[in-house]
Parts: sequence; structure tokens; C-alpha cells
Amino acid sequence: MTADLTLRPADECRYDALALGEVMLRLDPEDFRIRTARSFRVWEGGGEYNVVRGLRRVFGLRGGVLTALVDNEVGHLVEDFILTGGLDTSLINWVESDGIGRTARNGLNFTERGFGVRGAVGVSDRGHTAVSQMKPEDLDLDHIFGDLGVRWLHTGGIFAALSEQSARTAIAVVQAAKKYGTVVSYDLNYRPSLWKAIGGRARAQEVNRELAPLIDVMIGNEQDFTDALGFEVEGVDENLTNLEADMFASMIEKVAAAYPNFRVIATTMRGVRSASSNDWGAIAWSAADGFVKSAQRDALEIFDRVGGGDSGGHVHGHEEGSPEAGRRRRRARRPVIIDV
Amino acid sequence: MTADLTLRPADECRYDALALGEVMLRLDPEDFRIRTARSFRVWEGGGEYNVVRGLRRVFGLRGGVLTALVDNEVGHLVEDFILTGGLDTSLINWVESDGIGRTARNGLNFTERGFGVRGAVGVSDRGHTAVSQMKPEDLDLDHIFGDLGVRWLHTGGIFAALSEQSARTAIAVVQAAKKYGTVVSYDLNYRPSLWKAIGGRARAQEVNRELAPLIDVMIGNEQDFTDALGFEVEGVDENLTNLEADMFASMIEKVAAAYPNFRVIATTMRGVRSASSNDWGAIAWSAADGFVKSAQRDALEIFDRVGGGDSGGHVHGHEEGSPEAGRRRRRARRPVIIDV
Amino acid sequence: MTADLTLRPADECRYDALALGEVMLRLDPEDFRIRTARSFRVWEGGGEYNVVRGLRRVFGLRGGVLTALVDNEVGHLVEDFILTGGLDTSLINWVESDGIGRTARNGLNFTERGFGVRGAVGVSDRGHTAVSQMKPEDLDLDHIFGDLGVRWLHTGGIFAALSEQSARTAIAVVQAAKKYGTVVSYDLNYRPSLWKAIGGRARAQEVNRELAPLIDVMIGNEQDFTDALGFEVEGVDENLTNLEADMFASMIEKVAAAYPNFRVIATTMRGVRSASSNDWGAIAWSAADGFVKSAQRDALEIFDRVGGGDSGGHVHGHEEGSPEAGRRRRRARRPVIIDV
Amino acid sequence: MTADLTLRPADECRYDALALGEVMLRLDPEDFRIRTARSFRVWEGGGEYNVVRGLRRVFGLRGGVLTALVDNEVGHLVEDFILTGGLDTSLINWVESDGIGRTARNGLNFTERGFGVRGAVGVSDRGHTAVSQMKPEDLDLDHIFGDLGVRWLHTGGIFAALSEQSARTAIAVVQAAKKYGTVVSYDLNYRPSLWKAIGGRARAQEVNRELAPLIDVMIGNEQDFTDALGFEVEGVDENLTNLEADMFASMIEKVAAAYPNFRVIATTMRGVRSASSNDWGAIAWSAADGFVKSAQRDALEIFDRVGGGDSGGHVHGHEEGSPEAGRRRRRARRPVIIDV
Amino acid sequence: MTADLTLRPADECRYDALALGEVMLRLDPEDFRIRTARSFRVWEGGGEYNVVRGLRRVFGLRGGVLTALVDNEVGHLVEDFILTGGLDTSLINWVESDGIGRTARNGLNFTERGFGVRGAVGVSDRGHTAVSQMKPEDLDLDHIFGDLGVRWLHTGGIFAALSEQSARTAIAVVQAAKKYGTVVSYDLNYRPSLWKAIGGRARAQEVNRELAPLIDVMIGNEQDFTDALGFEVEGVDENLTNLEADMFASMIEKVAAAYPNFRVIATTMRGVRSASSNDWGAIAWSAADGFVKSAQRDALEIFDRVGGGDSGGHVHGHEEGSPEAGRRRRRARRPVIIDV
Amino acid sequence: MTADLTLRPADECRYDALALGEVMLRLDPEDFRIRTARSFRVWEGGGEYNVVRGLRRVFGLRGGVLTALVDNEVGHLVEDFILTGGLDTSLINWVESDGIGRTARNGLNFTERGFGVRGAVGVSDRGHTAVSQMKPEDLDLDHIFGDLGVRWLHTGGIFAALSEQSARTAIAVVQAAKKYGTVVSYDLNYRPSLWKAIGGRARAQEVNRELAPLIDVMIGNEQDFTDALGFEVEGVDENLTNLEADMFASMIEKVAAAYPNFRVIATTMRGVRSASSNDWGAIAWSAADGFVKSAQRDALEIFDRVGGGDSGGHVHGHEEGSPEAGRRRRRARRPVIIDV
Repeated sequence: MTADLTLRPADECRYDALALGEVMLRLDPEDFRIRTARSFRVWEGGGEYNVVRGLRRVFGLRGGVLTALVDNEVGHLVEDFILTGGLDTSLINWVESDGIGRTARNGLNFTERGFGVRGAVGVSDRGHTAVSQMKPEDLDLDHIFGDLGVRWLHTGGIFAALSEQSARTAIAVVQAAKKYGTVVSYDLNYRPSLWKAIGGRARAQEVNRELAPLIDVMIGNEQDFTDALGFEVEGVDENLTNLEADMFASMIEKVAAAYPNFRVIATTMRGVRSASSNDWGAIAWSAADGFVKSAQRDALEIFDRVGGGDSGGHVHGHEEGSPEAGRRRRRARRPVIIDV
Repeated sequence: MTADLTLRPADECRYDALALGEVMLRLDPEDFRIRTARSFRVWEGGGEYNVVRGLRRVFGLRGGVLTALVDNEVGHLVEDFILTGGLDTSLINWVESDGIGRTARNGLNFTERGFGVRGAVGVSDRGHTAVSQMKPEDLDLDHIFGDLGVRWLHTGGIFAALSEQSARTAIAVVQAAKKYGTVVSYDLNYRPSLWKAIGGRARAQEVNRELAPLIDVMIGNEQDFTDALGFEVEGVDENLTNLEADMFASMIEKVAAAYPNFRVIATTMRGVRSASSNDWGAIAWSAADGFVKSAQRDALEIFDRVGGGDSGGHVHGHEEGSPEAGRRRRRARRPVIIDV
Repeated sequence: MTADLTLRPADECRYDALALGEVMLRLDPEDFRIRTARSFRVWEGGGEYNVVRGLRRVFGLRGGVLTALVDNEVGHLVEDFILTGGLDTSLINWVESDGIGRTARNGLNFTERGFGVRGAVGVSDRGHTAVSQMKPEDLDLDHIFGDLGVRWLHTGGIFAALSEQSARTAIAVVQAAKKYGTVVSYDLNYRPSLWKAIGGRARAQEVNRELAPLIDVMIGNEQDFTDALGFEVEGVDENLTNLEADMFASMIEKVAAAYPNFRVIATTMRGVRSASSNDWGAIAWSAADGFVKSAQRDALEIFDRVGGGDSGGHVHGHEEGSPEAGRRRRRARRPVIIDV
Repeated sequence: MTADLTLRPADECRYDALALGEVMLRLDPEDFRIRTARSFRVWEGGGEYNVVRGLRRVFGLRGGVLTALVDNEVGHLVEDFILTGGLDTSLINWVESDGIGRTARNGLNFTERGFGVRGAVGVSDRGHTAVSQMKPEDLDLDHIFGDLGVRWLHTGGIFAALSEQSARTAIAVVQAAKKYGTVVSYDLNYRPSLWKAIGGRARAQEVNRELAPLIDVMIGNEQDFTDALGFEVEGVDENLTNLEADMFASMIEKVAAAYPNFRVIATTMRGVRSASSNDWGAIAWSAADGFVKSAQRDALEIFDRVGGGDSGGHVHGHEEGSPEAGRRRRRARRPVIIDV
Repeated sequence: MTADLTLRPADECRYDALALGEVMLRLDPEDFRIRTARSFRVWEGGGEYNVVRGLRRVFGLRGGVLTALVDNEVGHLVEDFILTGGLDTSLINWVESDGIGRTARNGLNFTERGFGVRGAVGVSDRGHTAVSQMKPEDLDLDHIFGDLGVRWLHTGGIFAALSEQSARTAIAVVQAAKKYGTVVSYDLNYRPSLWKAIGGRARAQEVNRELAPLIDVMIGNEQDFTDALGFEVEGVDENLTNLEADMFASMIEKVAAAYPNFRVIATTMRGVRSASSNDWGAIAWSAADGFVKSAQRDALEIFDRVGGGDSGGHVHGHEEGSPEAGRRRRRARRPVIIDV
Repeated sequence: MTADLTLRPADECRYDALALGEVMLRLDPEDFRIRTARSFRVWEGGGEYNVVRGLRRVFGLRGGVLTALVDNEVGHLVEDFILTGGLDTSLINWVESDGIGRTARNGLNFTERGFGVRGAVGVSDRGHTAVSQMKPEDLDLDHIFGDLGVRWLHTGGIFAALSEQSARTAIAVVQAAKKYGTVVSYDLNYRPSLWKAIGGRARAQEVNRELAPLIDVMIGNEQDFTDALGFEVEGVDENLTNLEADMFASMIEKVAAAYPNFRVIATTMRGVRSASSNDWGAIAWSAADGFVKSAQRDALEIFDRVGGGDSGGHVHGHEEGSPEAGRRRRRARRPVIIDV
């Protein structure tokens, strides 16, 4: 699949791809449950960040992350993981610590994997984070997109939902990217819990509709298009079958008509048999080629599905042996981004 | 040492001792440093809580804790540890989770032990916690101190500094305890970082001076009496020598004169040779017996000193094999409380 | 399912449920085999105990355990786990240690999980335990069932088989419970190895027939009813199919006729595909409602089946993240006990 | 030091050295305490066995062990460790399992290391073991010492105290060894807890006095010579100083006079500063050369002292990296045995 | 199945079975991937060695290994594992270390297990090993096969491919074995990467054809017979179905005709569904009985398939709890060797 | 201390510092010994590399490494660690894998820490590595030092001793660095085992004398100056006392006279009390300021001394929590390099 996306020349740009989003410390009790754990393995993650990390470690692209961290030991642990992820850390916005975590914190994500009939559960401890308070003026956007040069920017609906500020920051950063010819992808990723206190579904749609006309590659499942962008589709439930895929396709056509700027629209279709076994497929549409479907993989053995709802790009899981190993998740947009 | 403390009869009281304070999840990178860790061992801790936990597990007293937790997986992990600590969990104030940690969180404490010339460092991630928002009316104080009965209440300056609310809550709970004849101990534990945003040293002294007339057993090092209560003592630095102990004694006499309600005043005196070796001693004064000194232990091998600045009662460390093992910390107030 | 069981009022009783049984230290080599292991993860377990632990941690009931432990470090480790289990430890009968384990020991249970075609195996090291020597007079039965009050007592055929003494103790405790109106459940759990040296199948039937007229809720698989109680049923093998379930139902009807005091009779039906995959179902009969069947779950992913033969109540596994996680074991008696 | 010991020619003997004793499974909670542990590292150990294991792994001698194990998974785990120890397992007396541990068990030894001011503690769970029931006729002594050939036999007072039977077995095995010209060493190792139920100190002396005339190399500290053999020495306490060493020397002279068959008498002298720091020295006397003293090592860093009281030959610790590593324990008898 | 193999009497032979081959240190990142691992679990392995280790630990035969190791810490770690494997280490050829690994090294094998759709991958770091340089004159072959006596020798195409020297050594050792009446089995195990630099497929066939007339029991899959010995068979791919098994059978008949000295020819047939699920079967032909097929096991749960391509005898995996546990791999030659 | 070193302007240079050297995988058995280990923790290390890693992670400089790795899973694991170290990986020379390790390997370093009287030991498995075969033409030296720009190059006597090729490569790279104005530091680090097979001490001196006139900052202990460069000093042994420090100073003056191009000469002075306790000091001379001594630290607690003999810059140990934590190693050249 080759989308008709025009990218800036590589030699003009320091970055092949930047992510705008939160990077949290993931705490994983391994075979155990959070509520009875005695130790946690840790690493980093974030819906938008994971996509660019995968592009760096799996495909060798030059990447970086636009985010903020509190300048304390936990913040530097997250930085240590971003270095391991191969991403440039020089754009991180470091915020002074108050020693207590009242004014600004680093985001934490406790998640257990589930096993068999027991599903994954977790605690998202990401209130009052430094990144949720990050303003456009904390980033030198003209320097980054103008002087340094960025071929692709990836962000999404999780970052936009972190706070009222982060919605405004998302819009400003995407505008700056477009100003300098950077391709922009956006993962709708509608999360009711994040939006609840800052305006709910109505405000989510308002923000996403303001962003949508600036987006080149739009990613989301059918729920996302409904809740986050306001399109309606009938007869589709969470686990898409082939029939449902067809119905989803008709919705995508409506979306494409409403936002002619979208060059690619993509989604994954996941059927959850148990925490240890999922069916998996993906579908993408591009202005150039119409619909493309991935190979359908039924009864895929699952090691850890974390991130399945966060982002479409955790390619790094199965390629780098992180705990996501075992999942072969290649969303339809992957090949597009490889074309970068 | 036998202080002239009059305790309520044991058979009238469901609790030998209650703590009022925060219970945090401690995250320990074991032999490694936080900023390069890949896993954390966890357990619970809190300056006020640790004292009553030690009374339960080392001495068999019936204890409980007045605290609040968010009703999510991390909150229930802390509850799991409190159960292991043998304390009654029925007085915990459970607060609904918003799924994100904006409205209320559970406190976290990342701390590494240090080794040799490298000292212990950590991140206290305790802003916006449920317990910092706990109000007197969240606790049925008349039922607890009146109907159920409590022989001893322990709280301190860390809890009082969590927020403007917690200072008010501390005062209200101590007043309720005194109303029903409960003995009250208080550990001054002055922490500038906690007070900074809510009035600083001046507000700390205001709160502590309001509480002091209600306290039976007052605990603190010389810095605490100076910063948290406003007494001045000359020529004393952090690591008290015997000479300094004499000077500290003279300050205690001033304190005892100012607050004749204090039945016992106690402190530890720690000399830090390295993260792995400390000198340790303790001194206590009681209205009944005057001064008593503990055995002086020089060049004590240290496994993990966490809590050394938090509380005076982590006796459970060396008695129960928790990572504090190796420290023999028996503050002077220990024998007093044993007398309960 | 609502059985016609009349329970004592909750506010008259300190305990919603007590278990009478052994609490062993389980030693688990995790992914490895016992005979080549280099470390063991440990926790506690016991056929009767597990039921009440689940009632406490999953459903919040107030529970305790009637058992005995040797007063040494291993005994206190078991106590540490019982505290974590949320059960009252004040009824534990502590027995003096001889320093060697000749006169009395604590029970140990080394068990490996199995994987695929390799089944679980283990070593039950429970001879000469303190609990096998526990006499009725070691427990203040009138105080416990009379003064303190107990709504439900759970015990079973494993405890009764620990020694000739334990059979007599089981009878005496059940009699005391009935005297004060406590509902009694009993899990037949026939174990030939335990009975072998103390009278075999004949003695097992003798003991169980003495107990049966006192039991309100009787649990057992078809083998248990045959071996432990002496009922015969034809054409039923270990892995019950639906057809076999019907045949089991006809046996239950015979059992109900023979012991009209049984208000509920229940069992699980497990089909072992491999150590990692089981079919699972359950069936219960009550005097009030006749037969009820659980949802049938085929090809359930298994993490650790330990306890599958021990007891019907290890609900805590999948609810608390212990190594049993992954099994969704809800025997038919569960809903009954929830009704407590 | 060269003792005037005449050994059988190596090419006539299949074994350079055999141990007669118990091999237990040691369970070690590593940095934690037994009573709050969640996992144990395991390996094997035994006062008499350790000596011959060291001779095999450090000095390359051909060794084996006369012992008994129950034929279950734990017994085979101990066998797995004996194989790793390089000792011949063909002489092990395998006893059938009853599935429960009533008739015969394998010995277990839970021990924590201690740290700083907290000393090592443990639970010796060795009642009713197979080896304590081992009879001379379970071993084909004429075949072992006659046909196969053994140059050196090592046993001691721990094995002799396991039961009334084991005392008789020890005597019979030592007699068989002497009959075929095998040199015999014996470590007195007096343990009151082991003897308590089978005749106490009086019976210990009776057994040891029956064995002593058959022993070539006698090992023990001053307490051992007093309690286990009935010699008296004044003014010597547990931690021998140089002065005390002189007094110990005079006792040895008395011992040598009483038992002219002793070719070598040896002991270690340990001063315990803390669980993490010991002073260490050793002294030996031989008929040929009189007294020899080892280098004195003060303030030796201790990793794990287990076995310090058990046996004199745990050389394998510091040579093989087992948890005893860090201790350089070379008792005076070492060079003697090397001369084998 | 009883092959018409005539074995030397057991009482004339010190060894029931010897392996000639490399013993490598296996490094396993457990649940993780090599390229992102932070720790490795280690043990030993080798295609030829594993067969004899299994014979010792599963069936109790007296075994040893003809191999070479560098005399450094890693070499002694491998020796430690061989001792645990129960094999005689006295025939190991110890080679002096140059401190750097230029002149001779010990072989290492980093392998990750794979999970689900991600296959196993690894790094074989076995260049310049001591064993690849081992010459016939480094072994006292007349003493080993003549004086000591060996009933069975197992070697194979991996050892023969280690270097030009090892091919010559393999031939010389097999000749010596035959000279003294030892039965010889050989696993073809064709590895292109090993042969590439020393003559490729042509040289492999040359070596194997020189060895074949001396072999009693020949093992190999269809690819092995084709590549390593030069037989052609049509229409057979890697995962043999029943149909293909028939075709394989016809090839075996050709092989048996070409080498009438083969008493047994055997292979396994593995179908890889995913890294976690394999179909497994085996087929064997003997001169005495014709064809025998094992039970076919479909969708076998796989824990770790390492060695699946290395050797036909890793029986020790599922019997001893090593990470191969879960695989029930009983090649047809197993029963034959049991008949020894 | 401010040395009169003229550095290229930072904004002309992409790299503040480059290392030329090998990066090995370190395998650490943690508390155990290599020869009895069952697992290894891993990370990366190398005498020259460690210096630049420290400059990046402790002081924030922009660094990279000139090295070669085989393109297999182990090579990518080393790359994963270099990323975590924050160094640019784009200059790594990737060499094709032959699948076996005959033509080129990645270097491995098994090292155990030692404890108390047991010293650290290890196995350096670095023969036939890709980096030992790296030629100047494998690196685009004019592009690196000319176009990209490098302010400081650090290399040393370990890299130069890897092979005859690496000595030639070291000379060529240093010449290229000097051609473009890059400051060059060199750590003599004489290792007899590395030089033994490629000309010994005589060849080492030849190589070092060819390099010395190009070096700005020369590092080495007194043994290094003697063995690696041919200077003689009397009366100095391995553990320098203050007196010896004076004698070392007089040797440095001779060295400075012989090589007037040296702007700084520096060394550490380590006294080994035990594996767990060292005395530590450092001394430096600069043309500008004469001699400077570090603070002397006696009886420093040691966690892991690995690298102590390798390089002078493992600052990252105690700053980043790697296992070297606990050592505060700030050689005199540190402040110089900070001045960069």
C-alpha cells in the first residue's frame, strides 16, 4: 500500500518521526496480580510514544519525543528507557520537582496482563503530570519543525485528553507541524475516563474536530470514530467480524468524504477469546488505493496485550523482546509509515 | 523507664494503639539505583503507621490505622500489606477512583538504599493523595474513640503537613482522642518540602503549637524541636555526640517547662559514617524519671535506613526481616509504649 | 440458588466463617521441577482453610481458622500468610518447638504445576504436625461457638484423615458448632494416602458416617461419595461428561434421601485435557431448589491447579492474583456461601 | 603438618573418602527473614557430608556418602545436589515414601544468615528422617569397606545424635571401617537439642566414649570436648582468645593422654563480632608434630556462616561460590586430609 | 521394539554409554529476547551429550562424555553442570587457558524460546573451542574402550562438523569403539552453517559416508538423509504428515539397503504450528522388526524447543524439569537404548 | 585543575568525546561464583568505552564509540546497552555473522565480584572479536574527525593489545584525530595476557612509544608506566602509600620530560584491604599546574570493583546505579575532562 503522502526530504530533516505524547513508567507484576504483588518489573510506554519507538528500533528511523518529565529520579528512569528506545531525549521538557508531587508528577501505569478468563486490569496514575501541563511555548516549535526539520509527527487522542491545556497544546503543535510540511498522523484513542472531568464526549469531539482537518493519517477503531469524532455506524460491536469489517468500511467512506484531507484511515480489529488468546486483523483505506486488509490471525497466543488500546504502533513488542513479545501487531498504517 | 501515663483499661478498648497517618507504597530497586532500575520490590510504609505496625508484629498489641486510600488496585495492594502487618483495616476510608489519579491518588515512595559513600535518595510521590484530603467527618471519631475504645494514638508532623486539610484533621482527631482519655504521642518530623507550599516553617510551628498542649509523648530530634516547634539550641549539628547530647538535654528541659503536659520527650541520635555504617543512640526524658539513655551502638551495619527520618518506631525492620533488618532501632519511647 | 439454611444473626457473631483444618507452607518451584529446583516461591494453603480465606478476601466476610502451629520461624511464616489472608490468628493453637521436629512439626507441601503433557506432582510432608495432634480440649469450643459466635464452620475429610486424633477432633468441633446453631459444611476429599495407616477406606467411611448427620452442606466429587461415604454409582469415571453428570445427579438423590439433613450437595466436574488446559463445570443440589448447573467452561487455560483436589473454595486464586490465577473456579456451593 | 596416619593405597580403594551422615535440604531466604519470606533459595548440607563434598570439589578426591533418603521428589532434589557435589550416589539407601511423611521424611533446614546485630536463626526440621532410622544392615558394610575399599571415613556427633538407632549405626559403621584399615575422623559437634529426647548429655558422652577409642582424627571445640566427651577445662568461653587458646591446648594434652589412639586433634576458634564480621583462627595437635596454629584472621567479612557449627570442613564454601563464599575456613585438619 | 544389537556384558564395562561431542553453556533469557535481555539463566547442552545425560538421569545408566574444555571458570561451570547431569567427568580433556580466548574457548549457545508467532532464535558462539581442536591422541582410546569398557557410543554430525579436525577425530573414535565391540549410534544432524567454511555439503557427505559403514543405529530426519548422506526423496517437506511418513519410509528402505550394517534407523517428525504448539511423532525401522511408529501427539504445548534440531535424545527435558519440560520427546531409538 | 588543552569549539563538532575500543558483554553471577552459577546479570563494558559513557550519563556530553560488533543477537544486545548509555551507535562497524563464531565474535567478560578474603575472578572471552579485526579503512576517519568533528578522543592500551591489527588501527585513528585538532587521551592499562601472543612486553612498549608522542593526556598506574612504556621506578609496589605517591611523582616528572607533549599525566592509587574494602586515592600532574591530589578515601566499601583495572573513567558506576555503585571513583583527569 502506497499512500499519496508527500514527505519532506530526509536530508533536510533531523528527525524522521517525532511523537507528541506522555511517556509513563509501566509497572508490571509479571505472573501475579497488582493487589497481591511483591515486586514489579518496569519499563516505559505511552500511546503516541510507542509508535515512534517502534519506528526507531524496528525500522531504524531517527526519532524523538515531545514530552515533559519532572526532574527527579523517576523522571530520569523514564529518560533511561527512552535512551534504550533509541529516541532523542534533547527535546524533553524538564520540570523542576517540588519534592512531593503536588505541582507536577511523572505518569505511572500499573497494569497486570491477565491470564485465560481473567482479563488485564490496571491503575493509570497520571493526574497532575508535567506533560499534562506542557504548553506550546514550552517547546520551540519553529526551531523544531523549521530549523531541525521533522518528516512525520504522530500524536493522538490520549495526549489531547490529558488536560484542557494538553488539548490546546496538541492543536498548536499540529498546526506548527503542518506549517513546515510535516506529515501528521493521529490516533483517536477515545478514553472516557480521561475526558470525564474536562468536558466529556462533547469536548472530545470538539477538540478532535478542530484537529481533524490538519491530519493526514487518521487511526481509530469504530468506537473511536463514533465517540471521538461523532460518526455513527450501525450494527458494529467491539469485536469486528468480516461482516462488520464491511460495515466499518462504509463508515470509513463517510469519514473520508467528510475530511478529504485524510490520505489514510486505518484500524485494527481485535476479537478477545481470552486474555491469552485473541483474533487479530486490520484494515486500512487510502485515497490512492482504497481498502487493504491485513492477514487475519485467529487464536493468536498473547503474552501481554498492554498497549492494545493505547496505540497502533507497539511494533517494538515482538521485535525487541519486551513483554509484549509474542504479539505480531502490524497495523495497516505500519507499511504506510515504513514508506516514510 | 516508666512514665506516669494513665492508660484506659485494655478490656474497655478494641485497640491498644491506632496510627493516624499516610500509608504509602514503598518501591525499592534493591541493589540498584532508581534511575537505572528495571524492577522494584514493594512494601508499605509511613512515619506514623510504622510505629503501630511494629507494636503489633513485635509486641503483639492490637492495632489499627486511620487513613484513606483510593479504591483501585494500588490501594488494595497497600491494604494487602496492612493486613500482613496485622493491623485492622476496617477504619480505612476508601475513596472512589476517577480512573486517572486527578481527584485522588495513593501515595508512592521510591527510595534506594545507598551503599558506602553513595547516600540514599528517593522520590516522594504523594501529592493529591486521598489521605491528604481526609476530613474529620470522614471518620466517626466518637464511635472510634468512644464506643470501640483506643488506648494510645500515634500521629505526627508528616501527616499534619500533607495539606492544609490534614493539619486540621490532625487537630480534630487528637482532640477526639483526648476527649475519651486516649494517650497521644506525636513525632514532630519536620519536612520542609511538605510545608513549603502550605505556609512553610511559620505555619508548621502554628500547627504544632496548637497540637502540643494535647500531646502526652513528644518525639523529635533537635532539628525538629527547633524548626517544627520554635525552640532554639546552640552548637548542635545533625550528628549528635555525647557532648551534644548534653546540650540537647538542656533544650529538652526548656521544652518540658514550656509544655508541662509532656510526660515523655524522646529522640534518637544518629551519626552517619556512610550509607552502610551508622552510629546510633537514643535519649529520653520523662516527667517521672528524668533522662534515660539507650546503649550506644557505634558503626552499626546498615542494610536499609529508610524510615530513619520518617518515624521513631520501625522496630519491625529488624524483628520481622523486612529490608530494614540489621538496624536495631529501639528509640527511648519504645519501652514506654511497651508499658502500655 | 438459595438454600434453606438458617444462619445466626451477623451481629451476634464475631465470625462469619471459621475453617477447621491444616494450614501448610506450599513450596512451588515455579516453571521448574522440584527434583531439579534451585529456589521455591512459598505461600500457604490447606483444603479447608482456602475456603474461608476466599470468603474473606473475595467477599469480605469476617473469618478465622482453628488450627495448630509449632512456635518456630516456619510456624510464624505460616502465620504471616494467614494475616495476609485477612483471617483472625487469635485462635491458632501454638505448640512449643523441640528444636528438631521430632515431637511436632509444621506441614509442608512441595508441589510443581506441571505443563502440557507433564502433570503436576508433589511431596506432602505433613507427618507428625502439630495440627494432627490437636485435641478438642486445646480449643475452648464453648467460648468460640458460644461467646464469640460463628455463623458458618467449614471442615472436611483431609483434616479428619490427618491422624486418629484429628478424626475425633473433627467430630467434637462439629458437634460444638451444631450445639450453638452454626451452619456446617464438609468437603469429603477422600485421600487414600492419608487414611492408609490409620484404618484405610473402612475407617474413612466410619468417620464420615459419624459426621454426616451433622452436616448441612456436603461437598464431594463422585469418587468422594463412593470411597468416603460408601455410595455406589455406575458408569461414572473421573472426567464427568454431561451424560455422566446425569448419573451423578441420580447418586446425589440417593445421598439426599439417606441424609435428609443435607440442605445442599455440590461438586465440581473437571476434565483434564493437559496440565495447561482443563474442562470445568459444577453441579449442585439443594433441598429447596433441586439441581443447578454452573456454566460449562471448556479448554480453560490453567496456570496452577493446586488445590483442585484439596478443596472447593480456592476462589482467592483468580481473584487475588495468587499463582492459582487463571482458574475461574466457582463451585456450585460458592453462591450458597455468598448467601451467608 | 604431617600426621602419622597410615592410609590404605589409593589403587586398592574406590573411595578416597566417605561421609556417614545426614544430607538435608537447606532453605535460605537470602536477604530476608524466614518468618516474612516469600521465596527460598535451596541447596544441600550436612555436618559430616560437607567435609567430603569439600574434599571432592576443592581437592579432587573421590568421595561418596553413606546416608538414607526417602524416594520422593524432595529426596531426588537432594540427590541432584549430591551429584552436583561430585559425590557417588550409589551408596544412598532409598526408603519408600508413604506419601505423607509419617513413616519417613527427608531432613530440611531453614536458616537465615543474619545481618549486623541480628544473628542467624533457623528451623531444623529433621525429625523422623529416613537417615535417622538407617541400620547397619541397610548398608553392605563388608562390601563397601572390604570389596570397594575406603581410605578415610568421616562422621560425627550430629549423625550419632539423630536417634537411638543412629548412635548404634555410627558405632557399627566405624567398627567396620577400622576392621578394613580405613582412617576415621569424627567431629564431636555437641547439640543439646538433638540429644535432649534420647538421653541428653549423659547418653551423648556414653556414645562418644564408645566411639572415641576407634577414632584417628578427633575434631571439636572446647565446648564439644566438655559436653560431648566429658573433659573439663577452666576459664575458657565460647570466643577463644590467644590466652584461651593456650588453655585449650592444655585440655587437648589431657585428651591426647586419655585417648592415645588420636593421631590428630583439631578445632577452630571463632569470635563473633556481629553476624557480618567474625574473628577466626584454628589450632591442631598431632602426635607427630605437636601443636600447629592457622593464620589468625580478624574481622573477617561474613556472607553466611551456616555450617560454622556443623562441621569443620565446609571448604567448599569459598572455593565453589556457594553462599558460604567469603569465609576462608581452612581448619588445621585440612592439610592432614590433603595428605591423604 | 527389540533391535538385533549385541551389546558387551555390563559387568565388563565401566560405562553403559559414552557421548562424543561438545558440551556448551546455554544462555537463556527466559521470557525475554536476547537483544533486550538483562539476565540469562544458564545450563549445559550439546546434541550428542544430551542423549547420554538423558540415559543417566532418566534411566539410571552409567554414562560419561568424551569432550574438551578450557580450564577456566566457564569450563568449570560446564563441568559443574555435567556433574549435576550425573556423568563421569574424568574423561574430559582439559586445555590450558590463554586468559583471552584466542587459542581455545568454551562453546556458548545463546537461545531464546520464542512465543506464539515469534520463533526461537539464537547465537551459536562455538568457534575456536577446545573440543573442536581435540585430536584422537588427546584421548587414550584403547584404555577407554579396551580397559574400561563401553557398551554404547553416541556421536553425530554436529561434532563431526565442528572443524576439519573434529571430523577426523569422530572417525578415529568410532573406529576404536567398533574395534572393542561397542555399539555406535550416530545422529546425522546436518547444519549448513557449521560445514560452510570447511567444505560444505560435499565434505559433509564425504565424512558421513566414511562413518556410515561403522554405525549400528542411524538417526536423522529426511533432510539429514538427503543433505548429510546424499539420499534423495521426493515430495517430502519439513513437517511430515502421515502421507509423507510413508514416503520417508520408502527412503529409509533405500538407506537400509545401501548400508546393511544399520540395525536401526529412526527419526522424529515435527510439525510447527507456532513456537508454543507443535505436532510431534516419530518413526523407526529396525532390521529385526521393520517399521514402528510412536503415538502421534498433535498440538503439544511447548515450553522450550531448544535441542529439537540438535539431538534425538533430550529426554532429560521433561523428566528432570529443565526448561525443555513439557515436551515429551521419545524418539523411536529410546526403547532400543532402554533395551541396553 | 585546569590543563592548558586547546579544544575545538563545541558548535563545530558533533561529538564532545569519542571512545575507540571494545565493548564487551559483561556477565555477572551476582552474589555467586561463576563456576557454580545458574544465572548471570548482564551489561556492557570496556576500558575505553566506559570513560565516554560516564561523560555522557554523568556530565551530559555528546559521545559516541568507534568499535565493531558482529550483526547477531548478542551484538544487538550490546547495542541495546550502548543506547542506554546514551552514546551514538551510528559509528559502529557491523560485521556479518557466520552463524558459528569462527570468523568473528562479540567479546564477553564473565566476572565475579569477590567478597571479603575471596578476590574477584573472571574469564575474558574476547579472542577473534570483530573489533580486534577492525581496520582503519573500516572507519571513514576523515568524515568522522573532519566533517562531523570530535573534541576529544579516548583510547588505550587494552584496545591496542587486542591484536596486531588493533595496534595498527589505534595508531591510525589517533593520527587522524590529531590531524583535525582533536585532543587525545590514552590509558596505558598494560595487560600481559593480551600481549603475550602478539609480541609481549617488548611489542607493547614499541606500540606505546609510537603512540605516546601523539597523546595529550596520559593515564596509567606506576606498573603501566614501567611495563607499557619502559620507565623504571624504585621501591613502589602495587598499593601506593603516601610515601610511594612521592616516588611515583618523581617518575611522572621523568615521563613529562621524555614526552613534552603530555599536558596531563594521571593515575589512581588503590590499596586492596579485601574484596569488600579498598583504600583509594588519585594523583595528577599537568604542565600548567604541577601536581594535584584527590581526597584520600580509606576503607571505602566496595560493591563491585570491575573496571578498576580497566579504565580511569567508570564514573558511571556510582552515578547511575550500575553494580559499580558505591565506588566514588573520580580520577584526577575527571575535572580536566569536565573542563571540556
